[in-house]
Amino acid sequence: MSSPSRKELEQELAALQRRCRELRIPVLIIFEGLSAAGKGTLINSLILPMDPRGFKVSVIREPNDEERMRPFLWRFWRRTPSADKMAIFDRSWYRILLEQDVSGELSEEARYKAYADIRAFERQFHDSGTVIVKFHLHISKEEQARRLKELKADETTKWRVTEDVLARHKRYDVYVPAIERMLNETNHPDVPWEIIVAEDVEAASLTTLSRLIKHLNSRVQHIEEGTHEASPTKKKYLPFYTNAPKLADADLTNALEVDTYIELLEDRQQRIKALQNEIYRRRIPIVIVYEGQDAAGKGGNIRRLCQRMDPRGYEVIPVAAPNDVELAHHYLWRFWSEFPKAGHFTIFDRSWYGRVLVERIEGFCSKTDWRRAYKEINEMEENFYHFGSVLIKFWIQIDKTEQMKRFRAREQNPRKRWKLNEEDWRNRDKWDDYAEATQEMIDRTHTAYAPWTIIEGNCKKHARIQALDTVIDAITERLNKT
Amino acid sequence: MSSPSRKELEQELAALQRRCRELRIPVLIIFEGLSAAGKGTLINSLILPMDPRGFKVSVIREPNDEERMRPFLWRFWRRTPSADKMAIFDRSWYRILLEQDVSGELSEEARYKAYADIRAFERQFHDSGTVIVKFHLHISKEEQARRLKELKADETTKWRVTEDVLARHKRYDVYVPAIERMLNETNHPDVPWEIIVAEDVEAASLTTLSRLIKHLNSRVQHIEEGTHEASPTKKKYLPFYTNAPKLADADLTNALEVDTYIELLEDRQQRIKALQNEIYRRRIPIVIVYEGQDAAGKGGNIRRLCQRMDPRGYEVIPVAAPNDVELAHHYLWRFWSEFPKAGHFTIFDRSWYGRVLVERIEGFCSKTDWRRAYKEINEMEENFYHFGSVLIKFWIQIDKTEQMKRFRAREQNPRKRWKLNEEDWRNRDKWDDYAEATQEMIDRTHTAYAPWTIIEGNCKKHARIQALDTVIDAITERLNKT
Repeated sequence: MSSPSRKELEQELAALQRRCRELRIPVLIIFEGLSAAGKGTLINSLILPMDPRGFKVSVIREPNDEERMRPFLWRFWRRTPSADKMAIFDRSWYRILLEQDVSGELSEEARYKAYADIRAFERQFHDSGTVIVKFHLHISKEEQARRLKELKADETTKWRVTEDVLARHKRYDVYVPAIERMLNETNHPDVPWEIIVAEDVEAASLTTLSRLIKHLNSRVQHIEEGTHEASPTKKKYLPFYTNAPKLADADLTNALEVDTYIELLEDRQQRIKALQNEIYRRRIPIVIVYEGQDAAGKGGNIRRLCQRMDPRGYEVIPVAAPNDVELAHHYLWRFWSEFPKAGHFTIFDRSWYGRVLVERIEGFCSKTDWRRAYKEINEMEENFYHFGSVLIKFWIQIDKTEQMKRFRAREQNPRKRWKLNEEDWRNRDKWDDYAEATQEMIDRTHTAYAPWTIIEGNCKKHARIQALDTVIDAITERLNKT
Repeated sequence: MSSPSRKELEQELAALQRRCRELRIPVLIIFEGLSAAGKGTLINSLILPMDPRGFKVSVIREPNDEERMRPFLWRFWRRTPSADKMAIFDRSWYRILLEQDVSGELSEEARYKAYADIRAFERQFHDSGTVIVKFHLHISKEEQARRLKELKADETTKWRVTEDVLARHKRYDVYVPAIERMLNETNHPDVPWEIIVAEDVEAASLTTLSRLIKHLNSRVQHIEEGTHEASPTKKKYLPFYTNAPKLADADLTNALEVDTYIELLEDRQQRIKALQNEIYRRRIPIVIVYEGQDAAGKGGNIRRLCQRMDPRGYEVIPVAAPNDVELAHHYLWRFWSEFPKAGHFTIFDRSWYGRVLVERIEGFCSKTDWRRAYKEINEMEENFYHFGSVLIKFWIQIDKTEQMKRFRAREQNPRKRWKLNEEDWRNRDKWDDYAEATQEMIDRTHTAYAPWTIIEGNCKKHARIQALDTVIDAITERLNKT
């Protein structure tokens, strides 16, 4: 049997693209390879037969100012595909890593860490249903020399053969082992590398087309036959931190008199203001998460935290139900996007923990999904930590009687009535479910780098000072460390 | 009667914020002012009483790499508010202009042009229903000196008093006339400046609160009473270009034989490839718009244009109905966002012209809206042109018989059947309405800097070569100019 023609492959790819879109399968394709290996030509031959509504090509160069102020993976997270799209990367998260490895900038430990981060990143997308296909284009040193010479001879392309490109060509023999390491470290069966020998461009292009078709076909078939399963989380992989604080231990009788409160508040706010200047100067990003029952006092608490702060340096991100663009992405996508610039605060009024709270309880995601989320969240927070962030997570605890008191007060105050809705009453009915989910959340995500603090919330004044003190301590500790 | 207390003002603002959100009024607030005038404190006192779900503060510093590669207003467009939000700018589009004016970098002509662009930008938002409030904070030179000294004396703030800040302080007397010019040039009754004397911070904060309340109140009342009117477009302001090409003049019998076509195609694609290298090297952005009836052959035409191009340098943006995030913004917002980086191509498969085609005919926007759009579109394209872009706009014309032939062919081809849907048939029924709207669109937007080309589309081969030739000519002309 003869192999299919280019035309047949192109038509099959175009049909598969439409099918993936109908089935809402996000697809992530990356191209890595040596200079002049023909990535551009290959990518073009891949996208031309497809519907441009369905893909987006991202070209990865050096990070820009904005990107340098965020964790390494931030700019890739932002470009990950939604459920109706293919994201095609011309170079990817491997690029900088490889360059640093070759130049010897990367310590053994940093390399280990970086590959672990990348494996976690790819696994998270695979687990959420994204098809990931990774192409590496290989050419021999001789062929590379020949192509660079050809580019140089042409008036319109000679500017492409920069000093950098030539320097990389000279170090060809250093690149090869670094690339092999890269392939070995990240060649997981779920997200395999496809090595394309690209000496003959036409043959390489046909191989690329058929390999991609193979991967897409396999997923489409599994889904159509109902044999595709989301990766389940095995019990033993569920994280658990024995030193996690317990809701039951919160002493909700703790309270503050108004005079003491005013005095402490003034003092703490001044200290926060000074710390804000200091972390800005030292380019440390601060992430603060507020979670808590309805009417726990999150909004008022956040307001006291920010009252003396410079608005140029903080942002409050209120987290509600995702909009349709957000829904079409990985559930962590919108939180990655909001990660603060180095030197800034981002305060989340509710957060990614919605996955293991409201989404779990209301059944907005499957049990597999929310059980997997603990580890994914820990990994995301670890990424933030490795970038140098301070992470502070608050659960504001109130008791059921106090909540009722506050609901009633809202009902009676025409200025506050809008704050109370039917959902609040429905959530109240599920008080015990929330308590259970909350304790499990704390137990499974109370890491050393992003610990939880339970705020005793029955007395708002006490709660505010407790939160301010926690923020001051966490930032001060970080400032003293380096 | 005593003036309202801060607490009362804050409560009123919070209530107005909610009301604006319910009424889907986008709000855009900017703060300009001298160094140490207290913008931070004032902005904070404004946002603290509000619901953080409803606003976003943007701090405008020097443009970053990404932003420098785009027209001046690009980064502001991207941050304009959606219908459920307030966008608060700490410094704004006036910042760079003012700095350049003071440093003498700005020619008389450039200043004139920049203020015209800003007036058009603000008018477009006002006309689409956005409330714009512009605050300028003023302090005396003596007060500025005092505050800088205070900042310098404090260990945690002294780093803020940079060389730059001191240099600006020294040039206080140069800033004042430049600021006055800025205020005068852009103090339109629809988008007035509010000058706040900020010597006393508390008083300034109260004034800011009440002025903002006044503006929001006035809009809310007008809408509630049904007396708010979208700005109508007066007949005489409708642009019209007498040299615009006519649909009726297109010779649809023009055709190419397959042999000639293949030869020409190969030649033109090679030339485009060389031009792509050249415009990349010279950092010229290229914007190409494809419009045309259903089955006019836009997709195939675009594919031939891109076939030999390097995918790193072009992007095809297919334009469908806006998603909910896009719908909540100004209709030009999503197109501004997609503007190419300097040195890249962006090819729009349908475009902003949807406003005066499908939206007009289907009644998705009001008559006032689409009539106003001609001028708004010309202004946007002029912005692109002033940044150095080449703008190429294609209308692919086919006749009704040819369209029917293609519809039938699609029906019969199982690989193409998905391309045809009921909407296509419905649009066909409105052939004459579309023809009328199309001719008016061409007549009103055929500017010297962004002219239309009518592609004779009955023969696809002819149409592709005609489009390629037009692109080659337009780019070559631009390259020869500078």
